[in-house]
Amino acid sequence: MKINFSKCHSVLITGASRGLGLQMVRQLLYSPNRPPKIIATARNPAAAQELQELAKSHSNVHVLKLHSEHSVDAAVQSVDSIVGTNGLNCLINNAAINMTSELDTVTRDAMMKTYESNTVAPLFVTKAFLPLLRRAAAEGSDMGIQRAAVINVSSVLGSVQLNWGEGASYKSYAYRASKSALNMVTRCLAMDLEAEKILCVALHPGWVRTDMGGPTAPLSPEESISSVLSVISGLTEKHHGGYVDYTGKSLPW
Amino acid sequence: MKINFSKCHSVLITGASRGLGLQMVRQLLYSPNRPPKIIATARNPAAAQELQELAKSHSNVHVLKLHSEHSVDAAVQSVDSIVGTNGLNCLINNAAINMTSELDTVTRDAMMKTYESNTVAPLFVTKAFLPLLRRAAAEGSDMGIQRAAVINVSSVLGSVQLNWGEGASYKSYAYRASKSALNMVTRCLAMDLEAEKILCVALHPGWVRTDMGGPTAPLSPEESISSVLSVISGLTEKHHGGYVDYTGKSLPW
Ligand SMILES: NC(=O)c1ccc[n+]([C@@H]2O[C@H](COP(=O)([O-])OP(=O)(O)OC[C@H]3O[C@@H](n4cnc5c(N)ncnc54)[C@H](OP(=O)(O)O)[C@@H]3O)[C@@H](O)[C@H]2O)c1
Ligand SMILES: NC(=O)c1ccc[n+]([C@@H]2O[C@H](COP(=O)([O-])OP(=O)(O)OC[C@H]3O[C@@H](n4cnc5c(N)ncnc54)[C@H](OP(=O)(O)O)[C@@H]3O)[C@@H](O)[C@H]2O)c1
Repeated sequence: MKINFSKCHSVLITGASRGLGLQMVRQLLYSPNRPPKIIATARNPAAAQELQELAKSHSNVHVLKLHSEHSVDAAVQSVDSIVGTNGLNCLINNAAINMTSELDTVTRDAMMKTYESNTVAPLFVTKAFLPLLRRAAAEGSDMGIQRAAVINVSSVLGSVQLNWGEGASYKSYAYRASKSALNMVTRCLAMDLEAEKILCVALHPGWVRTDMGGPTAPLSPEESISSVLSVISGLTEKHHGGYVDYTGKSLPW
Repeated sequence: MKINFSKCHSVLITGASRGLGLQMVRQLLYSPNRPPKIIATARNPAAAQELQELAKSHSNVHVLKLHSEHSVDAAVQSVDSIVGTNGLNCLINNAAINMTSELDTVTRDAMMKTYESNTVAPLFVTKAFLPLLRRAAAEGSDMGIQRAAVINVSSVLGSVQLNWGEGASYKSYAYRASKSALNMVTRCLAMDLEAEKILCVALHPGWVRTDMGGPTAPLSPEESISSVLSVISGLTEKHHGGYVDYTGKSLPW
């Protein structure tokens, strides 16, 4: 598989200030088959220096303010004028948080905040951009990023089945519950948007050395994101409603 | 399988004002192998008339106020004095809500409120009663309700896998996401409490004619709860960390 976004006019990536979101912007930008329009959102764009520098030197990168827990209407308007009649082809809900929450330390507040950021926000960001995704999907072609797709960045830690034995060694009630719920939201969206040919998937990027993944993770952001972008490039109707990792392998729910 | 709670000193059921929770109290009470202590909680006990009447005529039914989204410390103290040195053998997290939340109608508020009641509350009720469950579990016998068990009343609607094709006909983002997350919480608890021999399962009671299930559901509360109580009676370490329905069948996550 290769990274190929050449038939995808526009990609929007949330949480692009750092970590995997920023890495997606970088790697899309330097790919030979890059999308004409890369929209990178951050809740505080002024503080996202690297992203701002990328945008300064590349006219196809658009940086927008989007705090996914708040109203996203202003961002939708801006995206509308960027993408125009083509609509938005690919929405990547990447922004998320993780808070310490083992059995002894978990708080109601950590549960609620994590759910708000990791589950509720992606649902409402998707709902807000639906008119633009629908505009893109109205063009008849095969399902995939050349038409319209919602990629929810989930985690293997959201797999209830794999949370057993060795797979359960990483403890986090708040994060795990939020990602299981995100998987459900993804599947609900997949059912609801199937008739309109908007592809929806949950994607695990691997365990990666970012602020969230920590320094002992096995994958570099480059390794993760080159695989992730290849997988996204190759999505077809077969993947619709699925849960795949960065190698393209299906995960059990 | 038969309903047999004779070796289980105490059962606590949340949301016992009506519906399946009230039915559990009734059927446990009239079972020949009933538990000596049935603790029925309601967020507004004064309004729970039928429950109050059952308690008036049966000294083994104890009605307590417990609003599962608030502090449950007062309830824990009362339960402590009811169960004494035996501890609490069986906690049934039954209370839950359902709010209309299809793609067009779902609100952030419905997502958050449903998660708070259906996912976060059962976790914190369980955490609050852990000292009493641990007291019961300290007695060495096989895993099951004769020792210590947490039963989280989930739903088949929480199965991400089954939310496809015909299984997806019932739409509710808020409820489905909350129950998937409850399944994850159940599995996290199962991992964390295994060493202490506290059995944890997620249980689907079937689709039942209650206020929540509506009048067209195929099962009566009697039919559902006689099966549910038999399944709970027969829980062993094999079920630990599992997801079963009212017939005892395993469900996919
Ligand atoms: N790293 C891993 O090992 C790993 C493994 C599995 C899954 N994932 C998933 O991959 C995605 C990216 O993770 P990462 O490792 O890049 O995390 P990260 O380094 O912590 O970066 C998180 C990004 O999300 C943004 N963000 C968080 N909450 C937000 C909100 N409410 N509104 C807008 N932006 C918000 C942050 O913005 P600020 O800069 O403003 O804080 C930041 O850009 C997440 O969905 C994560 O769950 C990561
Ligand atoms: N009925 C079905 O077909 C069906 C199918 C699958 C799963 N379930 C599950 O079975 C369980 C019982 O459902 P049901 O049909 O009996 O529902 P119900 O008839 O609507 O009764 C719900 C009960 O939960 C209580 N409750 C709700 N939120 C609460 C909170 N925050 N704190 C304390 N109590 C609260 C209610 O108390 P008030 O009286 O004070 O409102 C009531 O006693 C739920 O977990 C439900 O998700 C039901």
